This record gives sequence, C-alpha cells and structure tokens, in this order.
Amino acid sequence: MKKTSIKSIIEDADSVYGRIFDLFIQVLIIVSIVSFSISTIPTINTQLYLILELIQVITVLIFSLEYLLRIIVADKKLKYIFSFYGIIDLISILPFYLTVSLDLRSLRAFRLLRLFRLFKAVRYVKAVERYRKAFNTIKSELLIFAIATVFLIYLSSIGIFYFENSAQPENFSSIFDSMWWSVATLTTVGYGDVYPITTGGKIFTFFILMVGLSVVAVPAGLFATALQEAHKSE
Amino acid sequence: MKKTSIKSIIEDADSVYGRIFDLFIQVLIIVSIVSFSISTIPTINTQLYLILELIQVITVLIFSLEYLLRIIVADKKLKYIFSFYGIIDLISILPFYLTVSLDLRSLRAFRLLRLFRLFKAVRYVKAVERYRKAFNTIKSELLIFAIATVFLIYLSSIGIFYFENSAQPENFSSIFDSMWWSVATLTTVGYGDVYPITTGGKIFTFFILMVGLSVVAVPAGLFATALQEAHKSE
Amino acid sequence: MKKTSIKSIIEDADSVYGRIFDLFIQVLIIVSIVSFSISTIPTINTQLYLILELIQVITVLIFSLEYLLRIIVADKKLKYIFSFYGIIDLISILPFYLTVSLDLRSLRAFRLLRLFRLFKAVRYVKAVERYRKAFNTIKSELLIFAIATVFLIYLSSIGIFYFENSAQPENFSSIFDSMWWSVATLTTVGYGDVYPITTGGKIFTFFILMVGLSVVAVPAGLFATALQEAHKSE
Amino acid sequence: MKKTSIKSIIEDADSVYGRIFDLFIQVLIIVSIVSFSISTIPTINTQLYLILELIQVITVLIFSLEYLLRIIVADKKLKYIFSFYGIIDLISILPFYLTVSLDLRSLRAFRLLRLFRLFKAVRYVKAVERYRKAFNTIKSELLIFAIATVFLIYLSSIGIFYFENSAQPENFSSIFDSMWWSVATLTTVGYGDVYPITTGGKIFTFFILMVGLSVVAVPAGLFATALQEAHKSE
Repeated sequence: MKKTSIKSIIEDADSVYGRIFDLFIQVLIIVSIVSFSISTIPTINTQLYLILELIQVITVLIFSLEYLLRIIVADKKLKYIFSFYGIIDLISILPFYLTVSLDLRSLRAFRLLRLFRLFKAVRYVKAVERYRKAFNTIKSELLIFAIATVFLIYLSSIGIFYFENSAQPENFSSIFDSMWWSVATLTTVGYGDVYPITTGGKIFTFFILMVGLSVVAVPAGLFATALQEAHKSE
Repeated sequence: MKKTSIKSIIEDADSVYGRIFDLFIQVLIIVSIVSFSISTIPTINTQLYLILELIQVITVLIFSLEYLLRIIVADKKLKYIFSFYGIIDLISILPFYLTVSLDLRSLRAFRLLRLFRLFKAVRYVKAVERYRKAFNTIKSELLIFAIATVFLIYLSSIGIFYFENSAQPENFSSIFDSMWWSVATLTTVGYGDVYPITTGGKIFTFFILMVGLSVVAVPAGLFATALQEAHKSE
Repeated sequence: MKKTSIKSIIEDADSVYGRIFDLFIQVLIIVSIVSFSISTIPTINTQLYLILELIQVITVLIFSLEYLLRIIVADKKLKYIFSFYGIIDLISILPFYLTVSLDLRSLRAFRLLRLFRLFKAVRYVKAVERYRKAFNTIKSELLIFAIATVFLIYLSSIGIFYFENSAQPENFSSIFDSMWWSVATLTTVGYGDVYPITTGGKIFTFFILMVGLSVVAVPAGLFATALQEAHKSE
Repeated sequence: MKKTSIKSIIEDADSVYGRIFDLFIQVLIIVSIVSFSISTIPTINTQLYLILELIQVITVLIFSLEYLLRIIVADKKLKYIFSFYGIIDLISILPFYLTVSLDLRSLRAFRLLRLFRLFKAVRYVKAVERYRKAFNTIKSELLIFAIATVFLIYLSSIGIFYFENSAQPENFSSIFDSMWWSVATLTTVGYGDVYPITTGGKIFTFFILMVGLSVVAVPAGLFATALQEAHKSE
C-alpha cells in the first residue's frame, strides 16, 4: 500500500475508506471511554477489571499507532504536532505510558480529551455551523458577562463574609470560603451545605439574588436569541 | 345498530355521538388515573381500597371493549393495531390481565399511558399547532443541545471524580456516581446529597457551571423565541 | 357635604380630594400589612402586641367605613358588591368580625387581599399596559404550558414512585408524595428533603429533567419576548 | 513638575503618563483586594499576616495621596468631592483611619468599593455601551418586575406562614421568617434549610412556583432580548 493511499484514508474523510477509518476511531473512542468509566466502579470483580484494563491497553496502542501514522503522512509534520488535534492526540495517549512506571493513574483521565475528536464527525452539520455563528455574534457580550459574574461573586463573597463570619466561623471562615457560597447561590444550585443564618445575611442574599439572577441567566438567553437570528438569516 | 354507525361514533370526533363518546372515554381516563393514584396511598382503609380496585377493574373492562371495537370497526385493522394510539391502547390494558395471575402490580402504572389519548382533545387547537411548528424549527438545535448536555455531563463527571474521589470515596465512588452529581448540578437542582468539599472540586464546579448554565438553559430560550416567531408569522 | 361630592372623592381618582383619599387608603393598606406582619413575630412583648392590635382594629374600622361609603355612593350598588374590588373589600374586612367571637385568627390573613387595591395606583402606568398586552398575546400559550407542566409532573410522579417506592417507602409512599418531589425537581428548586437513591430513579430523573427544563422555563422566555415585541410596536 | 502636568497625568486617561497612572492604580486596587482576601483566611501564619497588613497600609497611603492630589488638581474641588467616584474614593480609605484607633475592622471591607474604579477601564468598550443601551430600554420593565417580585414574595410568605406555622413553629415563626423561605424558593435556590412539610403547604408551593417562575426569570430574558436588539440596531 502506498503512502498516499494511507494518507487519503487517514486525512480524507470524504473517501469511502476514510469514512470507515474515521468511524472505526470514533467507535474506539467510545469503547475506550465506556471501559474507563466502568473500571472506576470499586465493586467490580478482578476478572472484569483485567478485561477492561486489556481493552484500555489495546485502544491506547491503536491510538498511538494512529498518532504515529498521522505524523508520517502529514505534509507539514510540525504543523500537525502543534495543531489542536495533534496536541489532544498526544495528551490522550501520553499519560498511559507515564503511568506504567509512575503512580499517576489519575492522569489517565486525560484520555477523555479524545472526546473532542468526536466533534469532527459533526463539523459539517448545518446546525453546528449556526452555533458557531451565534457564538461569534455574542462573543464580546459573553466575555463581559463572565467578568460581571466574577465581579458579582467577589462582591457577594465580601458581603456574606461580613454578615456571617462571626455567626458561622466554620462555614464562612474566609473570603475564599464565602466564594463557594456565592457560586452555589448565584447559579441557583443551592446545595444547602452553606447558607446564611443571620437576618442581615438573609436580607443581603435577597438583594444579591435580585441583581444576580438578571446577570447569571443572561448568557443562555443571549445564545437562544442569537441562534434564532442565525436561523432566520438563512 | 349498524356497524357503520358504531364506526362513526368511535372514529368520527365531529359527530354529536362521537363527541359524547370521546368525552366519556376522556372522563374515564381521568377517573382511572385518579383512582389509581389514590390507591397508592398506604394509609387508606380496606373498604376504600376495594372500591378503588373495583373502579379500576370496570375502567379496564371498558377500555378493553373500546379496544376491541376499534379493531372491529377499523378498515385497516393491522394499521390501527400498530399505530401509535393502537399500541398505547393495548399497553394500557395488557398489564391488568397479566397482573391477575402474576405479581406484577407495578406494571399497572402503564395505564397512565392512556393520558396521551387526552392529547387528542387538544389536537386541533391553534396554539398546539404553533408548538408543533416551533418544535420543528428547532428540532436539529435541540438534538445538538442534547448531545452537548450529555457530553458536558460526562466531562464534569470525570473532572469531579478526579477531584473528589479520594476525599469522598462513598459519594464519588465511580464515574457513574459522579454523573448523578453532574445532573443535579448542571440542571441547578442541587439536592445537596452530594457536593464537592475539596478546594479543587469547588473551583472546578465554578468553571463547569459557568459553561454549563449557558448550555442547559438554552433549549427553553430557543423554544420561547421559536414560539414567538410562529406567532408573528400568522 | 353633599352625596355627590363624597361620591367624587371616593370614585374619581382624578380630582384633588380623590387623589388624597386614594393615597390615604393606600398608606393605610401598607400600615395594616406591616403591623400584621410584625404582630406574627412570637418574641415581641405584650405592649407592642397590643399597639399593633389597636392599629389593626382602627384600620379595619376605616376599611369598613370605606366599604359602606362605596356601597352608598355607588349608582349600581349590586354591581359594586359583586365586582372584583367589591368582593376583595368585603373579604378583607369580614374575617375581622368573624374572629371577634370565633377562634379563626388565621383568617385575618385575608386582609392582605387588600394589596390588590395597590395595583389601582399603577393602572395607568405605560409599562403596566405593555405587560397586559404581552400577557394577552401569550395567554393561550401559557395555558398550554400550565397543562403540559401538570401532565409532566404527573408522569414523573408515577415514574419516580415506580423506581423509589420500595427503596424509600417513607419519602415516596404514594403518587401524591412523589408529586412533591416532581414539583421540587422540575422547578429546579431541589430542597433536598426527597431525592432518588436508586440507580433507576437517578437515570429517570436525568431524562425527566432533560425534557422538563425545556418546558418549565419556557413561560418566562415567552413573557420576555412578548414584552419586547410590545415595546417595539410602540 | 508643574501642577498642570500632574493634572493631565491624573485626569487625562488619553496621555501616555495618564494611562500608566491609571494602570498603576488599577493594579494597586487588585493587589489591595487580593491581599485583603488572603488576610481573612484564619489559618495563615503571623508572618504572612504582617506582610499582608503592610501591603494594605501602603496601598491605603497611596490611595490617600491619590485622593488628595485629585482634590488639588480639580478645577471644581467640591464637584469632585461629591461626585460618584469622589465619594467612593473617600469611603474606600476612610475606614482604615477610623480602625486605627477604634475596633471597626469589618468596615475595612469598604475598600472593595474601589472595585468600581475598575469599571473606568471598560467604559469605552463598545459592548459595554450596548449594555447600557439595553438597560435603559428595559429600565421601567425591570422596576415593575422588582415590585412584582417583592409583592409575590410577600404574598407567598403570608401563604406559607398560614400553612406551616403550626407544623413548624421554629422555621416559620413569623411572616419575616417565612420571607426567607420565599426568597430561597422563588429564586429556585432551594437550600433545603426550610421547606413545607404539610400537604397544604406543598400544594401552595406548587401554585406559587407556577406563577413565580414566570416572574422571577423574566428580567434575564428581557436583558438578553434587549441586548440582541441593541446589537442588531448597530
């Protein structure tokens, strides 16, 4: 088999073999992720664990082979190595080789970065294109909202620290601890692990939520409206 | 009574008798559902329980009769049997007969599927039509969001597992357990049964929420905007 | 003073005395509500409690006098008595007289219905007019969403009852108990008093939330869009 | 150096030295805030605490010098002193001098008001301008929603007090305590520290949420739509 035909299989998603290759890699990514997920269950028996380990070794070897092939067939090898997908491909296999000798098993989670490869499959779908367009329209708005959210979280952390620190020194021990409360409250998640108990803190929470809800929920609304605009303009 | 007139009563919702028949079935569905719901209360006395059981037996018998009649009067019997409503009609009565002999009482809940029959009553309402139109416009967007949500939940499960597994091995025992946290957090439900306690996990939660809120809440916004468009275009 | 001039003071909000009368009643409503709220605090001393009781007796007497006057000056007495505000005026004073003899103190809360009188003050504000217009535009959509929400809550109650009843018989003891979970979950409030613990229940929660979030949050979006339309059309 | 050149450095953000001066103050604000935040951590050692205190003394001294310079170079001294930024500048340094002698350390948190100075840096950014425009469009709508929210919170407080007071006298001891429940519920935060346990209270919660969700979440949607309009009109 000539290098050019291997090249077309790996890089050209439009050819028949290229499609099969892409699909094979995508299925393998899902197999790798599912087997990794199952292997984290502490109650599975040793036999199943070994099988899952074996699957992971095999998938990483195939991914390594794919990585080497991609370098070999690339016209500009350095460009691929330092491209977004090139770096992801490397990061997703590197931890495996490092953890053979070292005790860095948790690094293996990096293989999930391979998930981004799945995005390639939807790259040409029209609706995805619409999302990219909508995202570009509101990019600067989203940035400002991110800044406003950080600002709001800091402000409310100072405020709640001032009100609750003396009443609940263990939950609101510092500004940084209070930030955790701010995140859980302004996003309306409200786990209930920390909450104000003083009257001042409760009134402060009311006011910060009145302002906060109008800030934190806006990006989703912006996205929806921009998406609709992109839809109409077609 | 001729077969054709029974046919018109059962199938033709526009005739007077057809309307009465439809209304009778709809009232019966609600009676069946309410009596089923009440019968699940563990503290009701035996007498009431027997009355509710009786109501359920009678309603199922009527629904069975209706099902048979619908098959008899249908021009294309197989088409009805395998149609959406045909299957629902069967599933909603079948469990009753199975549970007479077997201990599969929980299957009786399938009778609630009859609720879908109620939708027939609103089928021709203009606003419902608008919903269908709005839904069709954003179908592909909703699909992408569903995929993005699943992707986001998986990503955040891996992340929180990495941060919290060693600190809370009982709550974040595996990727699948961590997924439950992801679902409760990204939807902002936040029951408070599982939440991060490490600093790393809390910072991770902040970032995942910043991205997540802009994804999970978008479908509702999309729906609202599409609905408004459908409204204006009339 | 002639009857006609009293009539103009009570019914004509545009005359100088009419405005003063309206403002006086509105201030009195707020005084009545604030004193009622304070009187519910269990730790206040007897002296303050008696003062608050006195304020409430006086305000109710004035409201009673106002009610009688409104009947006297009305051209069509029965029309006023059975109008929206006529009924509210009666309900807000009636419990007071009933509770003098009977132990129905809690009925006194009905006086808060007087709050609706405050709406009269904003009746002619332009932005309020816009709200009414926006509300009228989406009335039928909101109704359908209310029905869909009730339907969704019932469906998810059955589902979670099926999954969790045997594991948590005290929290999910009947369909009606499960409904409380559905309400707290689909609105994303998530108090954390009841939550699924079985794997099946958790997966079911995920799916019901995926659908539910796109339904429950839509009315707010609809309102926002309709309001913007009403704004633009001016 | 002449007074006019110092004036241009301090007041003219367009000159080279003016820009450097602005940037220097902004960096100092962030240094001051970060060091303040770290100094609230109770577990830091004495040495670090003293360094952080020193940083705070130095930054306050520089801010004081800046405040005096701004008064000296201002053409209309009183106008600056009573301007928005003039008052903020004073409030952010005053607590420091008060707390040297008095035990009012918590007042030091006012220095965070200096954060508003950071807004100056983004004042000329186009997207911020868009926000201001969007905010102005919906100002009256937001006000009405604020009133409606307060009204709704009061109404639901009375309601839940009526249902839960006798069952949970410690959590719903007065209307004001019930308000805390209303805030946590209507914003869907749902900490889980207070929640209804009676059947009446639960049904009431359902109805109040059906109405409340359509009110509390609207401002965010309004903002998103107005922002999109401002974007399109450019």
